[in-house]
Amino acid sequence: MSERRYRMTLAYDGTRYAGWQVQPGQVTVQGECERVLAELTGESPRIHCSGRTDRGVHAREQVAHFDLRKAVQAGRLRMGFNALLQEDIRVMGLRPVASDFHARLNATAKEYRYHVWNGGVVPPPLRFYRLQVRMPLDVDAMRAAARQLKGRHDFAAFSANPNREVEGTVRRLDVLRVRKRGRDVVMIARGEGFLYKMVRSLAGFLLRVGTGEVAPALATDILRSKVRTARVPTAPPRGLFLWKVHYD
Amino acid sequence: MSERRYRMTLAYDGTRYAGWQVQPGQVTVQGECERVLAELTGESPRIHCSGRTDRGVHAREQVAHFDLRKAVQAGRLRMGFNALLQEDIRVMGLRPVASDFHARLNATAKEYRYHVWNGGVVPPPLRFYRLQVRMPLDVDAMRAAARQLKGRHDFAAFSANPNREVEGTVRRLDVLRVRKRGRDVVMIARGEGFLYKMVRSLAGFLLRVGTGEVAPALATDILRSKVRTARVPTAPPRGLFLWKVHYD
Repeated sequence: MSERRYRMTLAYDGTRYAGWQVQPGQVTVQGECERVLAELTGESPRIHCSGRTDRGVHAREQVAHFDLRKAVQAGRLRMGFNALLQEDIRVMGLRPVASDFHARLNATAKEYRYHVWNGGVVPPPLRFYRLQVRMPLDVDAMRAAARQLKGRHDFAAFSANPNREVEGTVRRLDVLRVRKRGRDVVMIARGEGFLYKMVRSLAGFLLRVGTGEVAPALATDILRSKVRTARVPTAPPRGLFLWKVHYD
Repeated sequence: MSERRYRMTLAYDGTRYAGWQVQPGQVTVQGECERVLAELTGESPRIHCSGRTDRGVHAREQVAHFDLRKAVQAGRLRMGFNALLQEDIRVMGLRPVASDFHARLNATAKEYRYHVWNGGVVPPPLRFYRLQVRMPLDVDAMRAAARQLKGRHDFAAFSANPNREVEGTVRRLDVLRVRKRGRDVVMIARGEGFLYKMVRSLAGFLLRVGTGEVAPALATDILRSKVRTARVPTAPPRGLFLWKVHYD
């Protein structure tokens, strides 16, 4: 087989898109990238990403791969992508890789960041990239809850659809940090893998802790219950970025 | 006279607007603010700003004032503005002031910042707020040119329309700095007053110095010529922010 594999890093503003995955009648990031790749190369390969992002979720660094039968110059292909894609999707890097590289299967960890503007008025340039929370957040309480959630647990209570999780509901959260800089409060989650809408569920729960609606100690109870209830809301996509994908 | 004067600080993303000033058939920042103020109060006062911004120019902090015959609670008015305005214009602050406060006449200095992304690919969240310059900029050369432009000079050669300048063309530039942080190159200009499109003309010239098209020493020659020529291009509005207005 003479196919050549390419690795691509992408950044996108998810606001306009129905998520990563191609869906009939919807504008998606994968759909736009595959349409442009076909236009540039005359080939129509599938583009595989490290993990789908949902409707409205952003990426600072998404990684993907695809195969071409006819080799192309990677720098030229990158420029072609950026000339034909809208400015809200950018190809940051593109290079040939070994044919056994797989954007999803080879990923060893992923980092997500959930951004909150904790104040009365969101500066206009940030309006699509911050969830606004007006009530002052108790960051220490959020950190206390985060410490209980970090580590290897059954996160069934933090999946938006635990019955759909084909690989079970146990995951290891290597990092769950809350950072505050001025009005910006950022929740950083890093781990090998995440359940369906798990990061937004963790963010939703930590925000309820931050506003004082629930006590930090409830984190352990909810983990143990293994049941998803209304105590864990899914935070809106606007504040979420796929930040970085790690490979060995 | 029983009118009450209010002072308002505004931030806006200028992308969608034909500048500050009301113009028939155009969507402008002043027009939107006056429409909303009328809706909120039933009065139709003019809103006066510290200095008009041009089409596409942003503001991190614009200051304005207006008078109302019937006093209103300022916090409530601010919330009303932010509820009725689009998210690309925000009222950051609003308070009653002495009736002799004047947003333009009392301003002692204004600071503008012109933002450049000096690299191959602009991250999507910054796409409306950076001018992209792919060629690596020589920041030291830009600083050498900026040092010659700082101070009190006849800036006729840096006005987009020197014949229209009713207060002459001499101005004092208290600050003209070039800052580089990673791929962000920022030109900071502060002074009592500026000529028509002067900041974008300074930015356009400094960028030509940065790309090596003209020597830094040309700055002094151009100042002395007092003639606007094609050697001084007007940089596009996308990268420009009215950053701060100073009052005593």
